[in-house]
Amino acid sequence: MSQSVGIVTPQKIRFDTELQLESGRLLGPITLAYETYGELNAQRSNAILVTHAWTGDAHAAGAHSSEDRKPGWWDNLIGPGKLLDTDRYFVVCSNVIGSCKGSTGPASIDPRTDRPYRLKFPVIMVRDMVRAQKLLIDHLGIDTLHCVIGGSMGAMQALEWGIHYPERVRAIVPISGTGRTSPMSISLNSAARQAIFNDPLWKKGNYKPEHPPADGLALARSLGHISFLSDASMHLKFGRRFSARDGLFDVFGQFEVERYLEYNGRNFVHRFDTNSFLYLSKALDLYDVAWDFDTMEDALAKLRCPSLWFAFSSDWLYPPSQTEEVVGQLRALGKNVEYHLIESDYGHDSFLVEPEKFTPKVADFLERV
Amino acid sequence: MSQSVGIVTPQKIRFDTELQLESGRLLGPITLAYETYGELNAQRSNAILVTHAWTGDAHAAGAHSSEDRKPGWWDNLIGPGKLLDTDRYFVVCSNVIGSCKGSTGPASIDPRTDRPYRLKFPVIMVRDMVRAQKLLIDHLGIDTLHCVIGGSMGAMQALEWGIHYPERVRAIVPISGTGRTSPMSISLNSAARQAIFNDPLWKKGNYKPEHPPADGLALARSLGHISFLSDASMHLKFGRRFSARDGLFDVFGQFEVERYLEYNGRNFVHRFDTNSFLYLSKALDLYDVAWDFDTMEDALAKLRCPSLWFAFSSDWLYPPSQTEEVVGQLRALGKNVEYHLIESDYGHDSFLVEPEKFTPKVADFLERV
Repeated sequence: MSQSVGIVTPQKIRFDTELQLESGRLLGPITLAYETYGELNAQRSNAILVTHAWTGDAHAAGAHSSEDRKPGWWDNLIGPGKLLDTDRYFVVCSNVIGSCKGSTGPASIDPRTDRPYRLKFPVIMVRDMVRAQKLLIDHLGIDTLHCVIGGSMGAMQALEWGIHYPERVRAIVPISGTGRTSPMSISLNSAARQAIFNDPLWKKGNYKPEHPPADGLALARSLGHISFLSDASMHLKFGRRFSARDGLFDVFGQFEVERYLEYNGRNFVHRFDTNSFLYLSKALDLYDVAWDFDTMEDALAKLRCPSLWFAFSSDWLYPPSQTEEVVGQLRALGKNVEYHLIESDYGHDSFLVEPEKFTPKVADFLERV
Repeated sequence: MSQSVGIVTPQKIRFDTELQLESGRLLGPITLAYETYGELNAQRSNAILVTHAWTGDAHAAGAHSSEDRKPGWWDNLIGPGKLLDTDRYFVVCSNVIGSCKGSTGPASIDPRTDRPYRLKFPVIMVRDMVRAQKLLIDHLGIDTLHCVIGGSMGAMQALEWGIHYPERVRAIVPISGTGRTSPMSISLNSAARQAIFNDPLWKKGNYKPEHPPADGLALARSLGHISFLSDASMHLKFGRRFSARDGLFDVFGQFEVERYLEYNGRNFVHRFDTNSFLYLSKALDLYDVAWDFDTMEDALAKLRCPSLWFAFSSDWLYPPSQTEEVVGQLRALGKNVEYHLIESDYGHDSFLVEPEKFTPKVADFLERV
C-alpha cells in the first residue's frame, strides 16, 4: 500500500454538551465520527481539516482492514507524498452532524426519549456542522488549523470556518461551492425530498431501518446524481445508447443512462439513512453565507485568512458564477484571494473525477500559507 | 375581442385506418382533435400548421365560449394582424396522438377490447405523430403547407414534416428544439416517469381516471417544470424568499420556489392524463432525427425547404448547441437555413414567455417564403 495511509481506525468521540443551533434549539450530547492521518507536530501547527460533501463521511483515506478494497473517498489526495502529505500534515476528517455515518443525526437515539430522533431531530445549518467540528478540533488540542479544504458542502464548511473562527484558521480552500444555494438547486433538492415524502414506506420518518422507503430514496438520489453530472459527461459515458436488455418500444425500456442512475440509486439505499438525506438536503438549501448578517459583504468582511477557490466550467448545480460572486466581493474587500476556473466536462463531480486539474495549484498555495 | 380569432369550435375527425407505426405496430382507428383559424384560400396554398409541445393541445388561439377567460396557448401569435395573420393564413393546430386532449392516446378505447388502451397503447415516436397529422392535412385538402411552426416537441414535428414530406412543405420554423434529445434530458424524463411508477395509485397504468396517481404525476410535472425554467428566471421570480407561511427550521417548510412548483404540479393533475404524460415523455426521449437513417446528415439531406431556427441562451433542456449541431449540418449540406440565438433569461420556456424577441424574424421569413 505504497502512498497510502494504510489501515486506519475509525474514531468516535462523545461531547456531553448541548450545542446551541442556529434555529435556537439545543442538540446534545453530540457524537462525532472522525479519522486522522499523519501525526500532529509538537507545535500543533500542521493540522488540515478535510470537510466532506452531502453523503460523504469521515473515511477520507486509507482502508479499514486489509480486506477493505475501497479506500477513503479522497485517498488519491491524502497520504505520504500526496497533496495532503501525511509525512508533513496531520489530516482530520469528521462526519457532519445530521449525517448517518457515525455522528449524531436523525437516526441517533434522542436521550430525552431513548428512541431515535427521526423527525424530532432539529433542522440544522452548515454553520451548525462547523460549530460541532470545532468541539473536535478543540479536543484534539489544535489551536490553529493550517487549512480547511473541501468540495461542495465541504466548501461551504470551509468558508464558514474562515468567517466564524478567523483566529483558528490559516487558510481555506473551497472547491465547487457557492455563497448561497440558488433556487434551481433548491428546486432539485425539493423534488428529491418530495420523492421521499411520496413513498408510503417513509411513514413520516418512522420507517424501520430494515424497511426504508427504498423507491423514494433511490429516486431522490438519482435526482441528486443527475445534478452532479453534466450533459457532456453523460454524452461521454452513455450517449444515447439503449439498454441491450430492453426493447426500444417497451414502456419500461431504458436508455443506458437511465439504468445507470437507477442502479446507483438502488445501491444508495443500502448505505444511507433516508431521514439523514432529508436533513442534509435542507442544510444545503438553507445555506447562505450571509445568514444572520445584513449582507454577504458583511459576512465576507470577517474572513482574515487567504482563500483559494475553484469552480468547474460544466458545474450547473453550483455554477462558476456563484463562486465568482463570492470571489468578486472578497476582492472588492481587499482580501487575499485566489480563484481558478477549471475546464472540465464532469459537472459538479469534477472535483472528485479530475483532481489533477486543480491539486497542483493547491500544493503551491499550501506552500505559501 | 379585437385581434382575436374569437370563438372557435374544437373539431374532431376519425380516420378508419390502421396507421403503421415506427415500432411496427398498427394503431387505428385514429381520432384527431384539431382547430382551424382563418380561411383556406381557393388555391389551398395559405395553410400553416402549428405543432404543440409535450402537454399542449389543439387549442392554440381564441376562446371556446364567451365565458372562456383563458385563450389558446399561442393566442398572442395567431389572429387578425398577428404573426400568423388569420386574414391571410389558414392556421391549423392538431393534438398529437398519444396525448389526452382529444386525439387517440392511452386513455382512448381500444376497439379490440372495448376498454382503454392504458399500457397496451403502443410506444410512439414524434415521426408517428406527424404521420397521423398528415391524415388530417390530406383530409383538409391541403396539398402544400405554407409553413410548419412549433416549439420544443413542436420543433421536432416541424423538422420531421420537412424531412419526411418534403413535397408537402414550403418552410419550417423549429423553435427551442433539438436534433436528438440528450442523455441529460432523458435522465430528467426518466426521473419523472419513476415518480409515477413509484406511486401505488398508478397501478401499472390501471388507475381509475377519477383516482389518478396524483402525488406521482405532480412530482413528475414539477421535474419537467424545473427543466423548462432557468436559474436566472427562478432568481428573478423567487430568489431565495422563504414561504411566509412556513418556518425556516421546519422539515416541511418551503422556499417560495418550492411552493410554486408544488402548486403547479398539483394543478396539472386535473388537466392531464398520467399515462399520456408517460407516453409523450418516451416519445421525447426516443426523438432522433437520424432514426432509421444511417446518420443525421442522411436525414437532413432530405430537407428541401428553407428552415428558420431559434434557440434561447438560457435553455438548458435543449441548449443552443443542439440546435447549432443541426443548423451546422444543414449549412454544410448547402441548405437554405437561417438561425438566431436569442438572448433570454426564461430557459426553455422563453419561446412562450418572450415571443416578441423572435416573432419579427418569423414575419420576415414568412414574407420571403
